[in-house]
Amino acid sequence: MSIPTAPPSGFRDFLPEQVALRQDAIATITRVYKSFGFQPISTSAVEDLAVLLGKGGDENEKLIFKIMKRGEALERAHAEKTDLADLGLRFDLTLPLARYYSKHGSTLSHPFKALSMGPVWRAERAQKGRYREFTQCDVDIIGADSWGAEVEVITAILTVFKTFGLTDVKVHVNDRAHVKAEIEAAGIPAEQQNQVCIEIDKLDKVGPEKVRESLTALVGAEKAGAVAARLLAQGAAAPANLKTISDAIQAAVPGTQIAFDPSLMRGMGYYTGPVFEFRHASLSGSLGGGGRYDKLTEKFGGQPIPACGGSIGFERLMLILEEKGMHAGSSNPDAVVTVFSDDLRGRSLETATALRAKGLAIDVYPGGGKLKAQFKYADQKKAAYAIVIGPDEAARGVMQVKALKTGEEHALTLDEACARIAARV
Amino acid sequence: MSIPTAPPSGFRDFLPEQVALRQDAIATITRVYKSFGFQPISTSAVEDLAVLLGKGGDENEKLIFKIMKRGEALERAHAEKTDLADLGLRFDLTLPLARYYSKHGSTLSHPFKALSMGPVWRAERAQKGRYREFTQCDVDIIGADSWGAEVEVITAILTVFKTFGLTDVKVHVNDRAHVKAEIEAAGIPAEQQNQVCIEIDKLDKVGPEKVRESLTALVGAEKAGAVAARLLAQGAAAPANLKTISDAIQAAVPGTQIAFDPSLMRGMGYYTGPVFEFRHASLSGSLGGGGRYDKLTEKFGGQPIPACGGSIGFERLMLILEEKGMHAGSSNPDAVVTVFSDDLRGRSLETATALRAKGLAIDVYPGGGKLKAQFKYADQKKAAYAIVIGPDEAARGVMQVKALKTGEEHALTLDEACARIAARV
Repeated sequence: MSIPTAPPSGFRDFLPEQVALRQDAIATITRVYKSFGFQPISTSAVEDLAVLLGKGGDENEKLIFKIMKRGEALERAHAEKTDLADLGLRFDLTLPLARYYSKHGSTLSHPFKALSMGPVWRAERAQKGRYREFTQCDVDIIGADSWGAEVEVITAILTVFKTFGLTDVKVHVNDRAHVKAEIEAAGIPAEQQNQVCIEIDKLDKVGPEKVRESLTALVGAEKAGAVAARLLAQGAAAPANLKTISDAIQAAVPGTQIAFDPSLMRGMGYYTGPVFEFRHASLSGSLGGGGRYDKLTEKFGGQPIPACGGSIGFERLMLILEEKGMHAGSSNPDAVVTVFSDDLRGRSLETATALRAKGLAIDVYPGGGKLKAQFKYADQKKAAYAIVIGPDEAARGVMQVKALKTGEEHALTLDEACARIAARV
Repeated sequence: MSIPTAPPSGFRDFLPEQVALRQDAIATITRVYKSFGFQPISTSAVEDLAVLLGKGGDENEKLIFKIMKRGEALERAHAEKTDLADLGLRFDLTLPLARYYSKHGSTLSHPFKALSMGPVWRAERAQKGRYREFTQCDVDIIGADSWGAEVEVITAILTVFKTFGLTDVKVHVNDRAHVKAEIEAAGIPAEQQNQVCIEIDKLDKVGPEKVRESLTALVGAEKAGAVAARLLAQGAAAPANLKTISDAIQAAVPGTQIAFDPSLMRGMGYYTGPVFEFRHASLSGSLGGGGRYDKLTEKFGGQPIPACGGSIGFERLMLILEEKGMHAGSSNPDAVVTVFSDDLRGRSLETATALRAKGLAIDVYPGGGKLKAQFKYADQKKAAYAIVIGPDEAARGVMQVKALKTGEEHALTLDEACARIAARV
């Protein structure tokens, strides 16, 4: 059986231009987040399964790529028919952050504004636009119960979008605590509240009629009507805290469109208060989102600590940027120095070193052979110039500098070559 | 049982200052590598086990963190008692590169100069300075059989070290093909050649006497003597190709110390020609290394393609940089804008937005409460200034700007504040 050359299903290779664009985007996001005072943290890709799983397993268990035990531990697990896996790949950056803060919180500033970026892995069925390995870009504020935290997180993320030229991002906001109170007021018993939330969450996809039908099937017509009147009616009033948050965001980022969306739930079970989502006309899903999760650190045995965070859907952002025709800053070399012969390779290398010392990006042809192939290589690398140092040039202490676009060629000294290449003459 | 707050054994969390230093170092390495014309590529963290394993398994199998099959595939594997794992975490960047090139080579420049950075995972016993997750920084040239490729890779890596101020890095070089020829000439039969290499490789650690003893035990005194005379004798002459490579490197990076080291093997089984290693006085191990591997792409069913690559030991480089007291470029905010009251939070947010628009890094206190705690926060964040906008200031259209080092305080307009903060007056 031949060995595959493609990455596994749902995983991706990136070509040099894609990598450059992604790295530029990551650098921009980092810069904007840092300008808000968020501090970068980093956790491992691999976590103990106990960290990733809820007590007694949960809905997330299916998402986790589990890592098998090794050596004696694996043999013992086989023999004793216990769990074969002990570790797993993180499926988001929020659980690792809660663990991290529980461990290191006392050494960090308070409140702590965390910036966390990196790949996460989900064992979901791969499909167009949904990958099993993708990048998340999170900001979180831990230790602040003020609505100022929500404002800061949402403002930072909106500023990232604005920096990329996306000024038409709309913010949807809701409050889980408000939803919970309204559902309770509608007489829904505790054990049905989660399911009611899940049905309400489908509003965007299936419309109000279908939601009402499934709520009726779930809790009866009367209670379904009460829920609908409280949460799905046109013009339902936003709770006061969301109004405050919206006003403050509009003060910080004038012109921002914010909509109260009483059906917005966001999937993660750990949200306890305001939740939010970023939408863009060119996407059917969201461009990011987040919310308040005041109890997540309880899991690690500490006091509940108020926290709020948000995430940019990096892969979706990249889709939009690619559609907009955004290109990475050039990583093409300024010049390729050809190698006339093995005897003269030393001269080419010295020349390259001297040109690099002046701040130029200089590629030396790494193979041997004919100049024709070397010029083709310079074209492939999208270099602006090719440099030839043959025996004549070596003897005269010059180099031939050829502009690859125009074909114009000059015999130049090092300083002359440097000036010409830097000025793109 | 309580849930751990530490990462799993051999894995690490990084505090904000460490992350900043690591990110700065990665950016510097990337910049230098790119200035040599290397192009960034990226592959997935997860590979099919068939890609990671040699035909019929090999010495690397124990290194691999294996990922369990999921859903029906896992049930089937349990029922049919077949392999429970189908994927694994990459343990280096070279095998993934060989796969990548086999898939994408026709769309890449030729020869292809690849820059590959990222985490790799090894299921080794964790110990001081050896981690199960660590970063590699590789450059490779694929499709060049010229010794120019070795020179380019080694020169690029030396230039990285030099950029960090490490001018005292010594290069050790050897040639696997030369070793193989000498061992054959000493009469060692094919099936013992690998073991002989492994014994020679121990020279640095155990000294020549011990190596000779174990060689004698392995192949008898006569052949052991012949091997020692050819490879371990003082002043053994370097083969001509290594001399050429050394001369060219010294032309490109004047002052480089290069030593022929006939006992240098480098672990990876895929090397076929010159191998090299970077040493620094402050480390017992190496600071990086690499070599020529002309047959690795054969694994993926293609023609053998000449290739050569090298890697920087990023974690060891970080150790040296930390010892040298290197700090990251500041990611501290220029100022923290305090929040006098919830009523005035909007003013603080607008002020922060206006200051950020002038290029300053501005942190708004994300919580509520007393100014004293907010000033403490500004100290923790190592901000240069704290800004207060109370009712008086709001009415007068100014802000109090306090230099946290000196305690000096002024009521300033936006433009005045911006000028003062930017100038660090």
